[in-house]
Amino acid sequence: MKAQLDDLMRDAGLEALLILGAARHNPAMVYFTGIRHIGEGVLVIRRGRAPVLYCHPMEREEAARSGLQSRVVDWARLHERAQGDSVEELSLLLQHTLEEQEVSGRVAIYGRREAGEAQGALSRVEQRMPKVSFVAESRFSSVLGRARITKDADEIDRIRRVGQITVEVVRAVMDFLSSGYADDGRLVDRGGKPVTVGEGKRLIQRLLAERGADNPEGTILSVGRDAGVPHSAGQDGDIIYLGQPLLLDLFPCEAGGGYFHDFTRTWCLGHAPDDVAELHAIVLHAYREAVSALRAGEKALTAQARVCDIFESQGHPTTRSHPGTLNGYVHSLGHGVGLDIHETPALRLAVEGEARLEAGMVFAVEPGLYYPDQGMGMRLEDTFWLRPDGSPEVMAEFPMDLVLPVRARRASSRRQSARKSGASEKR
Amino acid sequence: MKAQLDDLMRDAGLEALLILGAARHNPAMVYFTGIRHIGEGVLVIRRGRAPVLYCHPMEREEAARSGLQSRVVDWARLHERAQGDSVEELSLLLQHTLEEQEVSGRVAIYGRREAGEAQGALSRVEQRMPKVSFVAESRFSSVLGRARITKDADEIDRIRRVGQITVEVVRAVMDFLSSGYADDGRLVDRGGKPVTVGEGKRLIQRLLAERGADNPEGTILSVGRDAGVPHSAGQDGDIIYLGQPLLLDLFPCEAGGGYFHDFTRTWCLGHAPDDVAELHAIVLHAYREAVSALRAGEKALTAQARVCDIFESQGHPTTRSHPGTLNGYVHSLGHGVGLDIHETPALRLAVEGEARLEAGMVFAVEPGLYYPDQGMGMRLEDTFWLRPDGSPEVMAEFPMDLVLPVRARRASSRRQSARKSGASEKR
Repeated sequence: MKAQLDDLMRDAGLEALLILGAARHNPAMVYFTGIRHIGEGVLVIRRGRAPVLYCHPMEREEAARSGLQSRVVDWARLHERAQGDSVEELSLLLQHTLEEQEVSGRVAIYGRREAGEAQGALSRVEQRMPKVSFVAESRFSSVLGRARITKDADEIDRIRRVGQITVEVVRAVMDFLSSGYADDGRLVDRGGKPVTVGEGKRLIQRLLAERGADNPEGTILSVGRDAGVPHSAGQDGDIIYLGQPLLLDLFPCEAGGGYFHDFTRTWCLGHAPDDVAELHAIVLHAYREAVSALRAGEKALTAQARVCDIFESQGHPTTRSHPGTLNGYVHSLGHGVGLDIHETPALRLAVEGEARLEAGMVFAVEPGLYYPDQGMGMRLEDTFWLRPDGSPEVMAEFPMDLVLPVRARRASSRRQSARKSGASEKR
Repeated sequence: MKAQLDDLMRDAGLEALLILGAARHNPAMVYFTGIRHIGEGVLVIRRGRAPVLYCHPMEREEAARSGLQSRVVDWARLHERAQGDSVEELSLLLQHTLEEQEVSGRVAIYGRREAGEAQGALSRVEQRMPKVSFVAESRFSSVLGRARITKDADEIDRIRRVGQITVEVVRAVMDFLSSGYADDGRLVDRGGKPVTVGEGKRLIQRLLAERGADNPEGTILSVGRDAGVPHSAGQDGDIIYLGQPLLLDLFPCEAGGGYFHDFTRTWCLGHAPDDVAELHAIVLHAYREAVSALRAGEKALTAQARVCDIFESQGHPTTRSHPGTLNGYVHSLGHGVGLDIHETPALRLAVEGEARLEAGMVFAVEPGLYYPDQGMGMRLEDTFWLRPDGSPEVMAEFPMDLVLPVRARRASSRRQSARKSGASEKR
């Protein structure tokens, strides 16, 4: 949590944090400023002192609204001194903030920004300020990562609100799909036109926007083979066959780039073939076993190991039993969720998975099985937090049903639309 | 344009471009890949060769859909070798791509990414690969910036489509405001409740989402003093007073982080006071004069100088006559618009403004005058492109009217809602 920042900086031997970039869709900056209309700022946090936000004159009132101390930069002068070189302009800006805040020693860099320009500017600052050295931290152990890994009550509330929005939208998508009709093995609308993945995605975009959420990372709504490749997002023109797995992975955030929530369900429209129903049952079993292993004090990798045990015992390859496999269980169990959709802790069989879970952590739990060549994939995912007593609580409840029932289209309406399409062909 | 890339690389003495990060909301990557569900990729472009996209196994089908050559990286092995150090993991990844593509010599870096991690990884790669050196380019003269500065026919079409969406949404906002009523100097709805900036922003979010547009940079919808500070975004709870300038600056992009369009109008609801009407007239005059100065072959700064002449001759301070002023004309005339909302060319009085305009450039033209302490600001903005004949054409037409008429609320409905609120008070 933010309150630990000073201690974490001391432990890491850091004198300051330097955060670059905008105050939107930029987790490190938004963590301190909130979501603001600031296109380019610099936040300097010296150990033991309050953060100071440097901003452009045009953005002075937005900076003040952050509640942080802010300083207006004479950007026109920087620009003139840099003679049209944007790398030089950024390096002069950074040097100015570090000098004014009297920073020396080890400094960690954060913020999402054009990497080439930042790298050039940071190199120049290091050359010009020999008492300053920039420290490359791993995201798994960085000071800011370790502060952000546990959430305070306000952060939990915000993630829960995004979770509520998420399940409202998922419910609406389910209702939209269930309002379709079965026709010749496909899902069609009242007029007989096949329902497409693109329609579902557009519905999701509208419903999220109405509810004050953004969807910067997109939505995975994928059918058949695409559902069998974890990050295949689905094609707008894809139509939905009955009995085929339809995977919806939704991960919106507060509008402007705030807290995320991560959620997946896999459905079959109308009916589920035996092999898909079997996948669903075992993934659901693995999900439940994983959740019961996720308690404060346990290692982050324990639950992943248990899920691998379950899948392997049923004959499914995993990345543990078959490194590099593209079939079976091909990814880790989960990841932290916060201002980034993927952050720490990492629930995986790796050195960073040795870390112990703590109360206040928020993470996605998402076991899955994938068989792209058989046209199927199955993933179930919820976002959990660890309560003060160390036990997991789901951030937003939603049923785990596999089959979404649909009605058969009546023969009379099929004849009607056949007549209509015949008529239009004559024109 | 993309077709010039090889020549530009040769002129700059670059052997390769290296683009980092996601294939969403990441202009340099999206320029080549299109908008894809790729969370972390590396694109290597060697001079004279086709680009090669390196991706995670889970994202192999999304990478293939880009139409580029793609290579799947054994990420699990990289991860293991890096022993939980994400900086090391990225440096191993970059080293792998550079070695496999046999890159040596001067390499430019692009892509939006966590700056600290990228800087650490790039430094290690430079140490380990002494034949590779990373070049810090200014955004005003970078190879990719110079390729992107002129748009081909497909890009123009895409920006024009976003422009059409923009003006549809602006029209709907105008209709929404005009459907309100004048009541005691404020804009109210049928029930007598004051209309707020927040309602307008939520309407905008929904309408953009329905039309397939994202709004990653947010919307400026600001009244009074906020309209007098160019980047103040407006407060959700602000109510709208009649006769006060209401500034709407809308800059959406294609969903997922594609091409932008930039647009501003400033309105007065009901009536315009004389001082606001005067500002509108002179800003509109400056806008027209600026547009007539924007032709292929002219310097980018010529139009800005003309606008300064106009404003100064009417007694308004400008950043030319009064450097650092927060009153009058406090910003430059405009900026390129493309996959970034702010890109080259820069229409300003600086060394980069010496560059000549070329056919195929797309830019925003946005003169404005600001008097925050008098509670007013005025900006008019359209996005233009320079046609093959060198003349400017607006990307989306929209009227420049200042006053939006509203009806007075009838006394009868005022009495009615007064009764209602009285009744509810009794409960």
